[in-house]
Amino acid sequence: MSGKALAVGPACPVPAQDVERVQLGHGSGGKLSRQLLRDRFLPRFSNPALDLLGDGAVLPATGSSRLAMSTDTFVVRPLEFPGGNIGTLAVHGTLNDVAMMGARPMALSAGFVLEEGLPLDLLDRILDAMAEAARQAGVDLVAGDTKVVERGKADGLYISTTGLGLIADGFTPSPQAAEVGDVVLVSGPIGCHGVTILATRGDIGFEVETESDTASLHPLVERLRKSCGDAVHVLRDPTRGGVASALNEIAEASDIGVELDGIEKAVPAPVQGACEMLGLDPLYVANEGILVAFIAASAADQALAVLQGHPLGREARIIGRAVDRHPGMVVARTGLGGTRIVDLLPGAQLPRIC
Amino acid sequence: MSGKALAVGPACPVPAQDVERVQLGHGSGGKLSRQLLRDRFLPRFSNPALDLLGDGAVLPATGSSRLAMSTDTFVVRPLEFPGGNIGTLAVHGTLNDVAMMGARPMALSAGFVLEEGLPLDLLDRILDAMAEAARQAGVDLVAGDTKVVERGKADGLYISTTGLGLIADGFTPSPQAAEVGDVVLVSGPIGCHGVTILATRGDIGFEVETESDTASLHPLVERLRKSCGDAVHVLRDPTRGGVASALNEIAEASDIGVELDGIEKAVPAPVQGACEMLGLDPLYVANEGILVAFIAASAADQALAVLQGHPLGREARIIGRAVDRHPGMVVARTGLGGTRIVDLLPGAQLPRIC
Repeated sequence: MSGKALAVGPACPVPAQDVERVQLGHGSGGKLSRQLLRDRFLPRFSNPALDLLGDGAVLPATGSSRLAMSTDTFVVRPLEFPGGNIGTLAVHGTLNDVAMMGARPMALSAGFVLEEGLPLDLLDRILDAMAEAARQAGVDLVAGDTKVVERGKADGLYISTTGLGLIADGFTPSPQAAEVGDVVLVSGPIGCHGVTILATRGDIGFEVETESDTASLHPLVERLRKSCGDAVHVLRDPTRGGVASALNEIAEASDIGVELDGIEKAVPAPVQGACEMLGLDPLYVANEGILVAFIAASAADQALAVLQGHPLGREARIIGRAVDRHPGMVVARTGLGGTRIVDLLPGAQLPRIC
Repeated sequence: MSGKALAVGPACPVPAQDVERVQLGHGSGGKLSRQLLRDRFLPRFSNPALDLLGDGAVLPATGSSRLAMSTDTFVVRPLEFPGGNIGTLAVHGTLNDVAMMGARPMALSAGFVLEEGLPLDLLDRILDAMAEAARQAGVDLVAGDTKVVERGKADGLYISTTGLGLIADGFTPSPQAAEVGDVVLVSGPIGCHGVTILATRGDIGFEVETESDTASLHPLVERLRKSCGDAVHVLRDPTRGGVASALNEIAEASDIGVELDGIEKAVPAPVQGACEMLGLDPLYVANEGILVAFIAASAADQALAVLQGHPLGREARIIGRAVDRHPGMVVARTGLGGTRIVDLLPGAQLPRIC
């Protein structure tokens, strides 16, 4: 065991031309790893739990509350797009899953897979966006981890985030809780995120004037909870697989049918146009800043007003109802007076959309 | 918006020859995604929280306890090796981080990045190992997510896991808490995991009779807590960067020096032999089933006995002391009566070791 031989042995010296990029050594738990952490992560996410630099965070668990825990992984291509980047998505997406459980987000952790050669200024922009998104949501990143893989073994970077939240007593929306008669609302326009990603990566072949809707939805949930409480049966953010997949999952979990009426009005013209050119259905296109809610009919007007009173919900609208016909199935009225079945897609519509 | 055109449109039909492998469509939130979840994940990890198939899990938070939260990402190459696979590591590694905070692991979540073309039987073996590791540790996987990326954009699969634990009142080991006079113990032999990985991927060029030590360390922590309580100042699992990096971090965090004496006795002969051939220092080689503990001197014999009484700690031994000289620095006595500095390595020694 010779320490001296080692220090100059199999350890990677850093080639001067590469100091602007991620090196394999950034992932090895030595000085470079620490430097990455100290120079790039800590200044942006500094908080008492994270600053201790342990392998995890200690959080207070108060009273007899229940905790919500959710994990999501982000592999969106490209890494940056109008309206946000993979970092914004990684914060919003996971905090939104926590919010949809009726919980107030309280902490976030993140695991990064970095590809060797990733430009550090791109990493900086992504971390900046994460920090800003977390700050706006009022949540600290309390623990994290980075690994580096060889060039060609990832696509820039992947981020996995886990969110923790505290569930307020007596507020328990869940995909199982939809009831026949519930009104189905959507808090904003449909399809903006997915179409923006397609346009940015050139899959469309023409420009589209859309932006990703990526946003933290907890403020909307908080308003719904305060004004409608128990009448809020289901909350869901229709991300991958779009509104159609979210509604199908709820219909199945609650054993009710869903009848959509006028949902095409929730699709902005640029999204509609892009989808028509591509033969895509906007109902299957991912969203990152809207929620679908099943609300008891008696509270539906109140819920709609509350949503519309917040900037994120200005274009909220009623898109359908829960019915006792065709349980487990989602059906849309078409413009011609007929109906069509809105099923789960068999496979991939839009890979790597989030 | 035509549902019919859609169903046969840009969705990916599944080529018959590929049903044994991961498809891009497995990542799209449609029927294939669900099938992957229902056929492969749920049967193995079934528990009330996960079975609800929501976007997250609800957990009870009892009393006024504090929570430990830790996230780790696993990119080990190869995916399978003697003693375990990436799934075993992903469970043990994260639960061990939680255990090192003095917490009893209570829940686990996992995010997967799957590469298109990954053989499903390999995925099955990895999930089996995760399920078995979680069962042995007495912890449920309560939430998860899978994403699929194109062939060549990952290396089989990557797993990010997050662990939650409850911290027992009055038991707060931390990297900041080492004190001058503390005895440094290691719970088992050093270097087995890292050398096994090198041998398995052929980096060594000869065979080594070692196995990864991957294991859940919470049983050792529980014994230390019960028998030594407050005298347990620091617990750390020396994974990436090895015992040397863990000790350096503790020395710095606690502003004490560490003097190692006789640590070479903790290195098994096959590990020592492989390291000599490669010019590697076993102190920097990753471990996945041992812990380093800083214990008040008065309780050191008790701690050693308690560790040695458990199968995982049979080869536990004292490797050094915390001293007031050279704060922040780790120094090892050499066989010749001299000393050498055991510093952090500047960059990569062993990439993708965990």
